[in-house]
Amino acid sequence: MAEFKTDIEIANEVEMEPIVEIAKKCGLHEDEIENYGKYKAKISFDAIERLSKNEDGKLVLVTAITPTPAGEGKSTVSIGLTQGLNKIGKNSIVALREPSLGPVFGVKGGAAGGGYSQVVPMEDINLHFTGDLHAMTAANNLLAALVDNHIHQGNELRIDSRNITWKRVLDMNDRSLRNIVIGLGGKAEGFVREDHFMITVASEIMAALCLSHDLEDLKARLARMIVAYNLDGEPVTAGDLNAQGAMAMLLKDAIKPNLVQTLEHTPALIHGGPFANIAHGCNSLVATKLGLKMGDYLVTEAGFGADLGAEKFLDIKCRLGGLNPDAVVIVATIKALKMHGGVAKTDLKEENVEALEAGFANLGRHIENLKKFGMPVVVAVNRFAQDTDAEVNKLIEKCEEYGVEVSLCEVWAKGGEGAIDLANKVVNLIETQKSNYKPIYDVEDTIEGKLNTIVKEIYRGGKVTITPAARRQIKKLEELGLDKMPICMAKTQFSFSDDPKSVGAPEGFEITIQDVRVSAGAGFIVCQTSNIMIMPGLPKVPAANNMDVDADGHMTGLF
Amino acid sequence: MAEFKTDIEIANEVEMEPIVEIAKKCGLHEDEIENYGKYKAKISFDAIERLSKNEDGKLVLVTAITPTPAGEGKSTVSIGLTQGLNKIGKNSIVALREPSLGPVFGVKGGAAGGGYSQVVPMEDINLHFTGDLHAMTAANNLLAALVDNHIHQGNELRIDSRNITWKRVLDMNDRSLRNIVIGLGGKAEGFVREDHFMITVASEIMAALCLSHDLEDLKARLARMIVAYNLDGEPVTAGDLNAQGAMAMLLKDAIKPNLVQTLEHTPALIHGGPFANIAHGCNSLVATKLGLKMGDYLVTEAGFGADLGAEKFLDIKCRLGGLNPDAVVIVATIKALKMHGGVAKTDLKEENVEALEAGFANLGRHIENLKKFGMPVVVAVNRFAQDTDAEVNKLIEKCEEYGVEVSLCEVWAKGGEGAIDLANKVVNLIETQKSNYKPIYDVEDTIEGKLNTIVKEIYRGGKVTITPAARRQIKKLEELGLDKMPICMAKTQFSFSDDPKSVGAPEGFEITIQDVRVSAGAGFIVCQTSNIMIMPGLPKVPAANNMDVDADGHMTGLF
Repeated sequence: MAEFKTDIEIANEVEMEPIVEIAKKCGLHEDEIENYGKYKAKISFDAIERLSKNEDGKLVLVTAITPTPAGEGKSTVSIGLTQGLNKIGKNSIVALREPSLGPVFGVKGGAAGGGYSQVVPMEDINLHFTGDLHAMTAANNLLAALVDNHIHQGNELRIDSRNITWKRVLDMNDRSLRNIVIGLGGKAEGFVREDHFMITVASEIMAALCLSHDLEDLKARLARMIVAYNLDGEPVTAGDLNAQGAMAMLLKDAIKPNLVQTLEHTPALIHGGPFANIAHGCNSLVATKLGLKMGDYLVTEAGFGADLGAEKFLDIKCRLGGLNPDAVVIVATIKALKMHGGVAKTDLKEENVEALEAGFANLGRHIENLKKFGMPVVVAVNRFAQDTDAEVNKLIEKCEEYGVEVSLCEVWAKGGEGAIDLANKVVNLIETQKSNYKPIYDVEDTIEGKLNTIVKEIYRGGKVTITPAARRQIKKLEELGLDKMPICMAKTQFSFSDDPKSVGAPEGFEITIQDVRVSAGAGFIVCQTSNIMIMPGLPKVPAANNMDVDADGHMTGLF
Repeated sequence: MAEFKTDIEIANEVEMEPIVEIAKKCGLHEDEIENYGKYKAKISFDAIERLSKNEDGKLVLVTAITPTPAGEGKSTVSIGLTQGLNKIGKNSIVALREPSLGPVFGVKGGAAGGGYSQVVPMEDINLHFTGDLHAMTAANNLLAALVDNHIHQGNELRIDSRNITWKRVLDMNDRSLRNIVIGLGGKAEGFVREDHFMITVASEIMAALCLSHDLEDLKARLARMIVAYNLDGEPVTAGDLNAQGAMAMLLKDAIKPNLVQTLEHTPALIHGGPFANIAHGCNSLVATKLGLKMGDYLVTEAGFGADLGAEKFLDIKCRLGGLNPDAVVIVATIKALKMHGGVAKTDLKEENVEALEAGFANLGRHIENLKKFGMPVVVAVNRFAQDTDAEVNKLIEKCEEYGVEVSLCEVWAKGGEGAIDLANKVVNLIETQKSNYKPIYDVEDTIEGKLNTIVKEIYRGGKVTITPAARRQIKKLEELGLDKMPICMAKTQFSFSDDPKSVGAPEGFEITIQDVRVSAGAGFIVCQTSNIMIMPGLPKVPAANNMDVDADGHMTGLF
């Protein structure tokens, strides 16, 4: 009864292969990896350089319908698909994001796939892994300390302490640090000012590292990061504080991709994990590019639904990284589509073909959108035992109307075996349909123009309203010459609109842009439709309360 | 002209041996270590278990005179000595503390010995190393978040938010976080309260990890840690919040000792680095005990001068760890002794035998003190080019009066070769003088009794004054049954007294105890003579400003 085992139990049953063996499968020499224990490794710059001469493999994005509390299992399908591709004789590698400790101890308890489609060692991946997030926390907070120290030591740059944009971070869910006052205690303790902690994955450092081509590029991006404005309203950068060298030093290993394995011993790159709202929600460009050089197929994913995740993958990551994606897999579940069709979570067990048909509008919209990007599309249905034949048949029928294939996957219960059909369909799609990938907007367009394109073409809103404050911010960015960058939308993931309760496929709504800020180091402009939670809190009963480790180091409570 | 190379340049010239080769020298099997790259490893619990049956080697403590701005070079002598012992055919291992990122980016720029007596890879050791400090930061801040979340979610334990003793930490010098107000912003953001960040090495977690016998012991210590008092004034522990399991999970690798090498390819354990004021300032007990099982000699050091570092090593670490130290090396420099004799830093280049003789009183006092602990003693003079023969001869003459041998070391310039004489003297000392180690006070004595013993026997003060507030704290600890633990003195390191300006060997002074707190998880009682800096600040020009890393990962600015 595999279904009733926990993820950690399933993971512990599988004997991992030494990471050097996995590295060999990727064409890596033993001296090109740096082991972190027996089952994790970082890949050296030398290897990346050597492999850069290889031909690129095929790039497959896994995205999803608009998320609901029923869940879709995007990571699990991504891992299942790479396992499935290997089963049908293709050399496939999966590239995923690194989990953050905050959610691990909060609600989720872990994030490394599920069931028989996991990346391992899942405990290590969910905890400190190879230290990337800790390095980013340190680099971020070094810069913050340098900013306040600069002010304390005489403030030569005339930093306006009312207008410091650089925030401190912790890789922890800690609501009490959202709004704080620092520098209390008198003259020796700095100047008093308001401050805010974010969770590390929301840091611009994470976004910049994930969009960097190499360490040199990262250092240049760090130098460009705006930490504050001076009393004349001019930007002050990390470069002005000469912080980029020490920060890059702290990040010199964090920028190297991490190699682990799936439960079926296929290679997995787990590297970087920026927030999918104030950042772009994809694993690192370095890992994706390397994976394309090492495998015939590189399967990757992007955070949230396709309106946010795939849009940013295609408009930000692929554009800035020079990537040419070959196909998109949209993950859906019957349960979630029924919720989009109006069924309450408590009633999901009942067959409801009508609701499924109504909810399909959400999936249909995402299919249309991805075709606008010129992408070949296939739908992957992550199957559950209670899905009825009538529901499944209706879904297949609807997809046929849209001219896309559907594959029924059982990746949780069967691993790669449960994704062989999907793997075949992905291979066939790529072999028969050429990708005509192009971003949805011209990066040289105005900020308002780019916003209009995203809202009208992708979200299907009727109108973009820009608040006076946001309009002033746009004007400022235009004056600074920082407006010709891609847009990173920060919007609720639960709806095409900016109202999280508006499920399905709403249209004609109004989107209000409240805040426009540049992430000059990452290289995009964040446009917020509402306040974005950048420091989560812990729930009434945190997952941490159920975690334990025994004298031999065996852990429980991660799942 | 070796003297004019930087430490990082010297370190980079030496080709390191793979860490598996170093492990073999310690009797470790290849599968008993977990590699972190090619030159760092953690040692597994299994290896510790297997080696526990071995006989113990000899335990040598390296301590120093009262520190002055002239410096002594305790770590450098420790590394030089272990290299020297290996040169004369002894199997010696050195056990040192891990550097903290705060000082690295602040004033110091690095802490891994110096010249030809360094531990390597020095850049990695000085930066993230194997992630131990990051793991402690995470565990510390998880507990802090759980405390505030408990209050926010209903406060079932009735925690008094005016009396929360658990502080948040960062491994960074950041004065602006010393005194802060958290929880601002309204009902969804927690309750407003005063809070304080410390640097990670000041955390009780660091102290507890360094005094733990194993992971099980650590978990029990974590559970005992007092995080706050409730509205009735009763202690609330991490165990009451059921936090110890998740915290231990975060620390499961951090408690494993780290293996690296000296520049002469001898084994070095670098593990744990608690503050030497509010904690006990020694590397981990796990590393020290393991080193004793792996080598004929284990050389280790303790923070600050012998009145603080050696006293805590002998009264806290050896007592709680069941260690039997065999000999003590007291490091002095001619320059520093002249400062104790009243010479200003600017005049140190002039020969001054009289000042040296006067300043010797400081060294003499430390020699007497260590003999009170029953310890055989040898003095190591860390030589500089400007030391004159007359000065050196006077020092030798004075040491003869005290019946101790002196060795002139040139460990910075010559590595182990410069410590062969010291190595021979240490071996001879141990072979001819049996240690009669005993702690200076009875742990079952009252807090006031223990304080009196330390102040009168070691510091040579005339009187201990306990403020009314501290007296109430002592009474509270007696009521709670938490008074029968060793004392951890928090006092300036620059004087035997509590006045940092009182150099040399003052006596008859009054020591005022202002604050008495229990570290129930670490297992000692901290007695403070004044406010202790637990969060350093950055200087006008931070070391970070001169650091850089090039495209190939080569670093500058660490020294």
